[in-house]
Amino acid sequence: MNRNSILIAGGDMRQLSCAASLIRKYPVAVIGSDRTHYPDGLDAPENDCFDYLVLPVPPLDEDGNVSTPLSKEELTIEEVTELIRPDALVLAGRVDKELRERFPGHRLIDYMEREELCLSNAIPTAEGAVQIALEELPVTLSGAKVLIVGMGRIGTALAEILKGFGADISVLIRDMKGAARARIHGITPVYASDMSYDHDVVFNTVPGLVFSRDVLGRFKADTLFIDLASKPGGIDFDSASQLGIKTIWALGLPGRTAPVTAGNIIADTIDAIIREEGGSSRV
Amino acid sequence: MNRNSILIAGGDMRQLSCAASLIRKYPVAVIGSDRTHYPDGLDAPENDCFDYLVLPVPPLDEDGNVSTPLSKEELTIEEVTELIRPDALVLAGRVDKELRERFPGHRLIDYMEREELCLSNAIPTAEGAVQIALEELPVTLSGAKVLIVGMGRIGTALAEILKGFGADISVLIRDMKGAARARIHGITPVYASDMSYDHDVVFNTVPGLVFSRDVLGRFKADTLFIDLASKPGGIDFDSASQLGIKTIWALGLPGRTAPVTAGNIIADTIDAIIREEGGSSRV
Amino acid sequence: MNRNSILIAGGDMRQLSCAASLIRKYPVAVIGSDRTHYPDGLDAPENDCFDYLVLPVPPLDEDGNVSTPLSKEELTIEEVTELIRPDALVLAGRVDKELRERFPGHRLIDYMEREELCLSNAIPTAEGAVQIALEELPVTLSGAKVLIVGMGRIGTALAEILKGFGADISVLIRDMKGAARARIHGITPVYASDMSYDHDVVFNTVPGLVFSRDVLGRFKADTLFIDLASKPGGIDFDSASQLGIKTIWALGLPGRTAPVTAGNIIADTIDAIIREEGGSSRV
Amino acid sequence: MNRNSILIAGGDMRQLSCAASLIRKYPVAVIGSDRTHYPDGLDAPENDCFDYLVLPVPPLDEDGNVSTPLSKEELTIEEVTELIRPDALVLAGRVDKELRERFPGHRLIDYMEREELCLSNAIPTAEGAVQIALEELPVTLSGAKVLIVGMGRIGTALAEILKGFGADISVLIRDMKGAARARIHGITPVYASDMSYDHDVVFNTVPGLVFSRDVLGRFKADTLFIDLASKPGGIDFDSASQLGIKTIWALGLPGRTAPVTAGNIIADTIDAIIREEGGSSRV
Repeated sequence: MNRNSILIAGGDMRQLSCAASLIRKYPVAVIGSDRTHYPDGLDAPENDCFDYLVLPVPPLDEDGNVSTPLSKEELTIEEVTELIRPDALVLAGRVDKELRERFPGHRLIDYMEREELCLSNAIPTAEGAVQIALEELPVTLSGAKVLIVGMGRIGTALAEILKGFGADISVLIRDMKGAARARIHGITPVYASDMSYDHDVVFNTVPGLVFSRDVLGRFKADTLFIDLASKPGGIDFDSASQLGIKTIWALGLPGRTAPVTAGNIIADTIDAIIREEGGSSRV
Repeated sequence: MNRNSILIAGGDMRQLSCAASLIRKYPVAVIGSDRTHYPDGLDAPENDCFDYLVLPVPPLDEDGNVSTPLSKEELTIEEVTELIRPDALVLAGRVDKELRERFPGHRLIDYMEREELCLSNAIPTAEGAVQIALEELPVTLSGAKVLIVGMGRIGTALAEILKGFGADISVLIRDMKGAARARIHGITPVYASDMSYDHDVVFNTVPGLVFSRDVLGRFKADTLFIDLASKPGGIDFDSASQLGIKTIWALGLPGRTAPVTAGNIIADTIDAIIREEGGSSRV
Repeated sequence: MNRNSILIAGGDMRQLSCAASLIRKYPVAVIGSDRTHYPDGLDAPENDCFDYLVLPVPPLDEDGNVSTPLSKEELTIEEVTELIRPDALVLAGRVDKELRERFPGHRLIDYMEREELCLSNAIPTAEGAVQIALEELPVTLSGAKVLIVGMGRIGTALAEILKGFGADISVLIRDMKGAARARIHGITPVYASDMSYDHDVVFNTVPGLVFSRDVLGRFKADTLFIDLASKPGGIDFDSASQLGIKTIWALGLPGRTAPVTAGNIIADTIDAIIREEGGSSRV
Repeated sequence: MNRNSILIAGGDMRQLSCAASLIRKYPVAVIGSDRTHYPDGLDAPENDCFDYLVLPVPPLDEDGNVSTPLSKEELTIEEVTELIRPDALVLAGRVDKELRERFPGHRLIDYMEREELCLSNAIPTAEGAVQIALEELPVTLSGAKVLIVGMGRIGTALAEILKGFGADISVLIRDMKGAARARIHGITPVYASDMSYDHDVVFNTVPGLVFSRDVLGRFKADTLFIDLASKPGGIDFDSASQLGIKTIWALGLPGRTAPVTAGNIIADTIDAIIREEGGSSRV
């Protein structure tokens, strides 16, 4: 028997967009959102033996229930547990110890840690960061002096977008490998020792203190710093504030700036997981 | 004697940015803004014989005084007339009959109609339009189906930016010349007869009714229309509203989204005009 | 009666590619090439009343016959005149006085002077120029210092291609309009007064002496100059030779580097002309 | 004492370009090229205690001597061994068993296997491949249907260049990670199951039989295949030949198409190795 039915519980627009995407391939039901939000073809669960449970990012609210921002009613873990098989696989974003304890008999997978999701999220993250720069800067990105720190997936996605704007881009790199990667993308690499401090906007993608008080002090006071690195970030925010430097620590951009795309990415990742588990799609 | 002194009267951030740019080359004084806004090196006029008067866009407020959004006090035409030479050249944005009547003895030039300004403003206009798309669309521009109508300066600037996002771009063209221009920019040209109506966002740059009720009705209801064409625009906005199609008529984007750049562009245009008039810069 | 039958006489691969493109829309016959070269569906003329005669670029050989590089036999003007209507329209590349005298009763149009053809040919011209640079330079275009002179259609096409290579591109411009056009394409504009002479390769597109002996002498001796301007070109070739500077005057690139595309462009131009003349296509 | 003197023996333009680059940082001598080829500042060895020996790619000729294509005289291993310290580090391209046996007391490093060199060489490889396509195709790359197989460093470099040409690019990928990487670079990913076989040119970068007889047979006969994969390549060349399909297996492109850049890349790699070994540069 093919095991591929999915229950999507709680969450915001991303979860509903994810459901709308998965319903094209799998039996899917939705719970924990007001029915007015249901995409076409989706409905509440009609049985109690789902093979996969998809929880949101983060999965729980502060009361320990499933996070349901699109519903006025609360949704308890017990309610969803009753609807899934005893051996159902639980897929959630940012799985922690608490969540594991709430699903003692189940295997849990954190879809936010899957490499394909991180790679795919680089694009909405970079687009969100560019949107912030467009909103904040009093000058055009065309001709703006832009420093990108790090040439990983987000730095690469940023560089590709900013090239289209005609920005004057440098990428801060640490070794010849980083330099080669920058050049493959047509971007000028610079080492810290040769770096200019005259920039209109700095995008940091490296989690680690790159911009200490000392380094921040060398930049113009009107340089805009946008930090895309996960905790602890790459900027000494207190010092920046004291120096009058504007910083924006932009986390969770995909869900905020492109929720439909972010939901589709989660759906594709769940699709990949189900295939790995041996579940086959209808198409 | 070299005639090149400039009085910049009224206006918003653009005018002050324009003044900050021109002071590097010419004697410049500012009037009609609170002193707190004055850029470094700029001051109130100390004589009454300026060769050039620069007025804002639009030049007058509803009371017929100089438009002074950055000042609490009004600035009358008489006040500024007393500070300039009888034969001073008056430079303003959107010169109309009323303005000509208020400066009967002076020659007036509309800097907003200069080709170099229109060309230069294409960039902040395109960036502002892309910012709107980023803010409004629930999907990424990467992979989004984008239709650009018109391959003039704004259409070209848009195409260059959107290529960097990895959007799936078509340009609606009318003849082989438009097709060639699109291909030079690496964009696929389409004729109206072959056009798909499946787009996430449409940018119109053509002033003329391209999107009648009939045409609008063929698009998906969630297509976003951004109209960049000056009056009367290219969209039947009433019909769009009735069809539930979201439209944004975005005029005056340079001043709103990149005031410093917009002011620099005005400064460069005024510099070009002064050179044509025979005035020489200090540098 | 619809008048749209076309006789294509003489020429090289371009003419045959042109014929292969036009046969999809119009009745077309071919003369003046060996039959082994005939594309599928094309044949020798079977009647003597063609409405349009298409001659190659240039139309005549040194004996005053139709230029037939793909045939061992000569083709006289008389032979082709007998196959066309007395009022047939003659379309040729580089129409001159001699050609007009040979077709006294006919109207002649020079398709090489049509704006859509010149615009379209900018792409194969730019690609051919980049091919030469790749063949001649001992360094990669990535990171190479490139100067483009002129921001017209060929300069624009070159800039678009070279951006993809990650070249370090400047465009030499003369005024703020040129600067604005360069910036719209994401390229740094420079005025002659601020120009660096440190370049790996210079592409000239301006017909007029830009590179005099004096100017050439300021460049490194190993700078490669590629001149794409029609006669008289933009380089003092004698002085360049004396200075040991390598120059390549690359004319007629579309036919040489992309004959099929060049033929398609001629076909599209002829199609546009026939439509303007009121001839309708089969499709 | 600082150990950083370098002897560069034999090789072609790459080795001399490498020497010209290293001399800016280290004491360098050259042997095994005619003196007419010596770059400025380089000379024959004046002592016999070099710390590093740099051999070419491949290091030996068929007689077992150092490969010296730029010299009429042979250079034996013994000659170079006498000029280096007993514990000198030997750096060569494509180190094999024979070479190890010829330098029994020395440590050997194959600089061609260093990741920074492979990354950097992706650019001249991609540029060389594009040059071949420009030379071979009768159509422009603008609008050409291009398939890239593999989204590693060479596939990425190719995609970046071909985007500038306005090619219609697809990338053949195997999983969602490859798809995400393609989208970050603004390229449309396709899975083998959905792939079109209508392409003007195919660039293969994957070493492994991607294009078997069966697969090749589905393409148009005039599709051009350019294989950039190292042995055994990704194409069944015999079958391609029987099917009348043109294939070009392009190996060693960096040295052939951009020898100066290729030499600089080797120099940067050697510089990185020397730093890792603890040798310090003069600057």
